[in-house]
Amino acid sequence: MSHPVVTFLSDYGLRDDFVGVCHGVIARICPEARVIDLTHGVPQGDVRAGALVLGGALPYLPVGVHLAVVDPGVGGDRRAVALSMADGRRLVGPDNGLLSAAAEAAGGVVEAVDIGHSPFALEPISATFHGRDIFAPVAARLAAGASLADAGEPIDPDGLLALELTRAEVVDGVLVGHVVYVDGFGNVQLDADGAAFHLGQPLGVVSARGLRVGARFGRTFADVGAGELLVYEDAYRRLAVAVNQGSAVQRLGISIGHELRIAPA
Amino acid sequence: MSHPVVTFLSDYGLRDDFVGVCHGVIARICPEARVIDLTHGVPQGDVRAGALVLGGALPYLPVGVHLAVVDPGVGGDRRAVALSMADGRRLVGPDNGLLSAAAEAAGGVVEAVDIGHSPFALEPISATFHGRDIFAPVAARLAAGASLADAGEPIDPDGLLALELTRAEVVDGVLVGHVVYVDGFGNVQLDADGAAFHLGQPLGVVSARGLRVGARFGRTFADVGAGELLVYEDAYRRLAVAVNQGSAVQRLGISIGHELRIAPA
Amino acid sequence: MSHPVVTFLSDYGLRDDFVGVCHGVIARICPEARVIDLTHGVPQGDVRAGALVLGGALPYLPVGVHLAVVDPGVGGDRRAVALSMADGRRLVGPDNGLLSAAAEAAGGVVEAVDIGHSPFALEPISATFHGRDIFAPVAARLAAGASLADAGEPIDPDGLLALELTRAEVVDGVLVGHVVYVDGFGNVQLDADGAAFHLGQPLGVVSARGLRVGARFGRTFADVGAGELLVYEDAYRRLAVAVNQGSAVQRLGISIGHELRIAPA
Repeated sequence: MSHPVVTFLSDYGLRDDFVGVCHGVIARICPEARVIDLTHGVPQGDVRAGALVLGGALPYLPVGVHLAVVDPGVGGDRRAVALSMADGRRLVGPDNGLLSAAAEAAGGVVEAVDIGHSPFALEPISATFHGRDIFAPVAARLAAGASLADAGEPIDPDGLLALELTRAEVVDGVLVGHVVYVDGFGNVQLDADGAAFHLGQPLGVVSARGLRVGARFGRTFADVGAGELLVYEDAYRRLAVAVNQGSAVQRLGISIGHELRIAPA
Repeated sequence: MSHPVVTFLSDYGLRDDFVGVCHGVIARICPEARVIDLTHGVPQGDVRAGALVLGGALPYLPVGVHLAVVDPGVGGDRRAVALSMADGRRLVGPDNGLLSAAAEAAGGVVEAVDIGHSPFALEPISATFHGRDIFAPVAARLAAGASLADAGEPIDPDGLLALELTRAEVVDGVLVGHVVYVDGFGNVQLDADGAAFHLGQPLGVVSARGLRVGARFGRTFADVGAGELLVYEDAYRRLAVAVNQGSAVQRLGISIGHELRIAPA
Repeated sequence: MSHPVVTFLSDYGLRDDFVGVCHGVIARICPEARVIDLTHGVPQGDVRAGALVLGGALPYLPVGVHLAVVDPGVGGDRRAVALSMADGRRLVGPDNGLLSAAAEAAGGVVEAVDIGHSPFALEPISATFHGRDIFAPVAARLAAGASLADAGEPIDPDGLLALELTRAEVVDGVLVGHVVYVDGFGNVQLDADGAAFHLGQPLGVVSARGLRVGARFGRTFADVGAGELLVYEDAYRRLAVAVNQGSAVQRLGISIGHELRIAPA
């Protein structure tokens, strides 16, 4: 029998022991689980960024229990949930939209429970660290074979919070999009599929916050000179902007949520 | 039989290969060990912060070998030790106070050995990387079943270095404490138990370094408005100060060791 | 039977999900593999730093598949390769010099294949994330028992790109070297073996970029006072410069590639 897998995404960062303590909690409950850290570098409290990362990564992860914690409303009235997906995956996290893109990628929710008062939680439940006290122990119990029904109270999947997402539009041949993610290399991901824009043409202009920069449409970084701007379909099939051997986010002076336009030259 | 567990805390950070090399050393000696990274983000050389993190996390970790390296005196005359605890845990690290809070949390030391010249060390022992050459290999050997007695020379547990800790005091109804830890969210942990201060009242004033800021006493971040100061008992049951959706450490302009006062409004 | 080991070094950082997604890919293909993260903090695009870290760490890692991705030319015409070593290790990564120091440390390459069109790759292969689509799946297949011959097209090991390395020289008793690596503590590693310079004498002068600072030759940080400069042989047996309880890189105002001179006082 293969080991059960728990994947773990959060905005906890790796400076503190938050991630390590959750690993400890999982290992105490389900020593045979293999825990894969998807990332803990989601921008703090940025539920949308976390949701996009989780949804985009899911197809590359083994089927398992997918634990996700970006939870600015911890201890407040947002619900804590565990979900079963059509493809056999299970998701555990706050009901704040964080799980929504992953749920879609996994074929939709077939069963949902509220785990706010789960019998699997560690008592006493702290008011500020539900990752340790609710989400990790529930994920570990599910990995160890528990059923979703035993993890909490059934709720209507249709009542789960959906994420409000912007979508780029093409207006008079100009793509008007928004920055949804910036990676550690400074590459800028937009709210558009890579296929949404005609990449066959060689030259374009990227404008953001009053700045206009010439760009090339290409396939990979080396398709433009060092320091030049590239518009491309990234590895998650999203439209993105990069600077070869440089940082697009610095060059354009933008951040998550900002509008960005791409026009033919 | 379940796999042996090694947990690992350090101030090595994750920029370099120090942590990965220690994992490699452990895997060569004890391939069946499961290594849990508690954190490697302890502020560099801050033995007290490392000790508090390790002591606070220990109850959430499986019983195992707990490797800890915050070691500004590496290669000098501080001792390297391995300890057996009353509850079956074993601790490995420098004898500079780093292990003291964990030892207390684990019921006290029942056996101690000096591993500075351990037969388990990797030769030649470098002067600057005892994590790789002494601590990791000793931890791995213990995880693989070796006895403490074989790891080094017996020493008196009473001679282990204790950590000097400040303790908050309440003077004329004002709590006078000190910052002992700041997490990656900017939350400020004090040298006081959460129960040390009457949290029933709604309003207070936090003062530090000449600055006075109004605060609310609450249970979780959402109990105050965005950007407002919260005084609360944190998940480790310590008294702490946070800013909802913000950073208390930035707001108050303080850092580890600074005095901080909390008074009723 | 012991679990196969995959070690993983990159410049991906831990902010994003790049590393986690590669872990997911490996776990889907070879669930029994144990993945050891050597480091993901190699300076972005710094092939030479990555090569030095991998080569220096290799002797401390279990024999396994060693995956390395520092790949500024991804999607361009650099080759992707898998290599078998004289000592049984296998290396997977771009053919840009990143693997060269490790190959030397492992006794030299005995077989090489071009995996740019590997049957093990995930289709469609993205143009910008070969870690996920080529390198990780090939590494996982090798860990699962596949032969190198099945992973790609045979190539001549002698045609692999070698890394151009500087070497410190001693001119009129003065060591003239270059910074090849700076660690997270601010310690500065030079392109010289520790044995290249006579460390028996007590005093020296370190000069870089017009700055001249007195230094002591010693064995470990505590051999000099707090804030003082130390010249020493580091744990990888390279000549290095540190500041006790401080940062040599800040004190000297240098970075990778800069010239640094060490002279007797």
